[in-house]
Amino acid sequence: MRLLAHVGVVFVLAMAGSTLLAQQDPLPSWNDTTSKRAIVEFVDRVTRPGSPELVPPAERIATFDNDGTLWAEQPLYVQLAFALERVKALAARHPEWRTEQPFAAILANDLAQLRDFGEQELMRVLAATHAGMTTDEFSVTVGEWIATARHPTAGKLYTELVYQPMLELLAYLRANGFKTYIVSGGGIEFLRPWAERVYGVPPEQIIGSSLELKLEVRDGRPVLLKLPTVDLIDDKAGKPVGIERAIGRRPIRAFGNSDGDLEMLQWTMDGAGPRFALLVHHTDAEREWAYDRESHVGKLDVAWDQAIANGWTVVSIKDDWNVVFP
Amino acid sequence: MRLLAHVGVVFVLAMAGSTLLAQQDPLPSWNDTTSKRAIVEFVDRVTRPGSPELVPPAERIATFDNDGTLWAEQPLYVQLAFALERVKALAARHPEWRTEQPFAAILANDLAQLRDFGEQELMRVLAATHAGMTTDEFSVTVGEWIATARHPTAGKLYTELVYQPMLELLAYLRANGFKTYIVSGGGIEFLRPWAERVYGVPPEQIIGSSLELKLEVRDGRPVLLKLPTVDLIDDKAGKPVGIERAIGRRPIRAFGNSDGDLEMLQWTMDGAGPRFALLVHHTDAEREWAYDRESHVGKLDVAWDQAIANGWTVVSIKDDWNVVFP
Repeated sequence: MRLLAHVGVVFVLAMAGSTLLAQQDPLPSWNDTTSKRAIVEFVDRVTRPGSPELVPPAERIATFDNDGTLWAEQPLYVQLAFALERVKALAARHPEWRTEQPFAAILANDLAQLRDFGEQELMRVLAATHAGMTTDEFSVTVGEWIATARHPTAGKLYTELVYQPMLELLAYLRANGFKTYIVSGGGIEFLRPWAERVYGVPPEQIIGSSLELKLEVRDGRPVLLKLPTVDLIDDKAGKPVGIERAIGRRPIRAFGNSDGDLEMLQWTMDGAGPRFALLVHHTDAEREWAYDRESHVGKLDVAWDQAIANGWTVVSIKDDWNVVFP
Repeated sequence: MRLLAHVGVVFVLAMAGSTLLAQQDPLPSWNDTTSKRAIVEFVDRVTRPGSPELVPPAERIATFDNDGTLWAEQPLYVQLAFALERVKALAARHPEWRTEQPFAAILANDLAQLRDFGEQELMRVLAATHAGMTTDEFSVTVGEWIATARHPTAGKLYTELVYQPMLELLAYLRANGFKTYIVSGGGIEFLRPWAERVYGVPPEQIIGSSLELKLEVRDGRPVLLKLPTVDLIDDKAGKPVGIERAIGRRPIRAFGNSDGDLEMLQWTMDGAGPRFALLVHHTDAEREWAYDRESHVGKLDVAWDQAIANGWTVVSIKDDWNVVFP
């Protein structure tokens, strides 16, 4: 009896502590708008003991797009900035690039010409900057670059241009038993070296576009070589494919910001049981950027119409976030 | 002061409880041999607080082959048995199979002829039985089959022919903070419907061979169609590729039983820090099967030589396991 009484005291104090914690707002950078309320109400529906729509922790899968959803994507995708800088860094070893496109345009900083290039030229840049090396070598290159590379106009490190409200949302979902995944059109090997530090998402929860890999033996040791051939384009219809390959379960929540995320949101919403889809709408030209239907980068058009038609949550950065960057 | 004293009492009692638990053998089906001691000593090295070789939980990745490592693979791989039975189940819809190989041989139970068929015929069987349907449809088919299908000679359900010592090992590693993965030459979509129930390994920790997937819209709803083209053969040199794709971290422990696992073991052992590789050697013709260098299924030859040369742990089922099946 005596022991039980002691355990009781400790238990009651522990409960009191957790109640205090629960009263702290886990999403302080979100204004008290319908978007925030929808986010919180859904967590309550699927996690509150006794809820008729309780979802077991193993099935609490939440997927997040990266570019434009977790960090800024204007004026051009960070990974493209990385690729262009790598071309410049490698140019001394490739004198032929002075006359070969698209390398000549990159070396001349001719962004107008770059914009006219198509998939074939993009693949040449990817092959030159993302392939022909081992996964370990590429990881080191990315890690060194991201530690110092700065946004061209904001002047901050790219990893400082992540959205504070979304960092809070990731942490809030994890605290409620969700497993958080990134599902990016960007490269899986480009995200993994820093996503755990910046987003708290470990390498095995990163899904992204990828090149084929090949095991080789170098100096008697096995290495994985990145080949210049595409394995998966994890964008649009490729996102559900990437999700099925890596997770094998359908997410119950998905977060995106552009037409590239539409199929992920549709795939998520078409499953049985409670479902939640959210789009970040970039509406704040002062604190960030304002763009949607006409944008070259992160175009939000068809997915926006679908969100409105289906009652998905659409976040307006200007109205729903009181802080944008940390 | 009073509260602290109470917390102290509870803490001391909790410690006493965990010491009692620790004294229960987590691997009772393993005899007290060098294999078992090597397994336990490695866990101690990488998890004991203060150990100079302590590995953070996030990096405690352990990968297990499936066929012949976690369940029986004789006289033929379970997935092949599934494929052959599916051919028979689908034959009424395919009258042309009566004269087309390899289907005619399968329908005639001509196993000798089947053994002479090569990769091309295998792909035809896979295309007929594993493709042309959605991932959800395939998952249901596998789930129904595995719930009732029995081993041809042992008479038990296939899921009863899992190795009890390996189930204990999976649980023991998880209890020590390891994340356990299956890395199988078999199909990822064939394993996922039952691996969580049988092995405690969730879908997102299954790595396996796969066909290409394609998102389609059927009756206005998105589905993932399994195409008759190979995405990844997760065997031999494909295992490190599958591991890198899905995990993005190198395992620190790997468990296999055949030459198909050699590259996974080499990839695991070539990383920095403490490493552990283990091969299951099938030495018990009475309780299971005895086979190695000359076997058609689960051939263990080059990997065995490598294990001996490098001091990897080689488990002899006859000597190291006091129980084989649950």
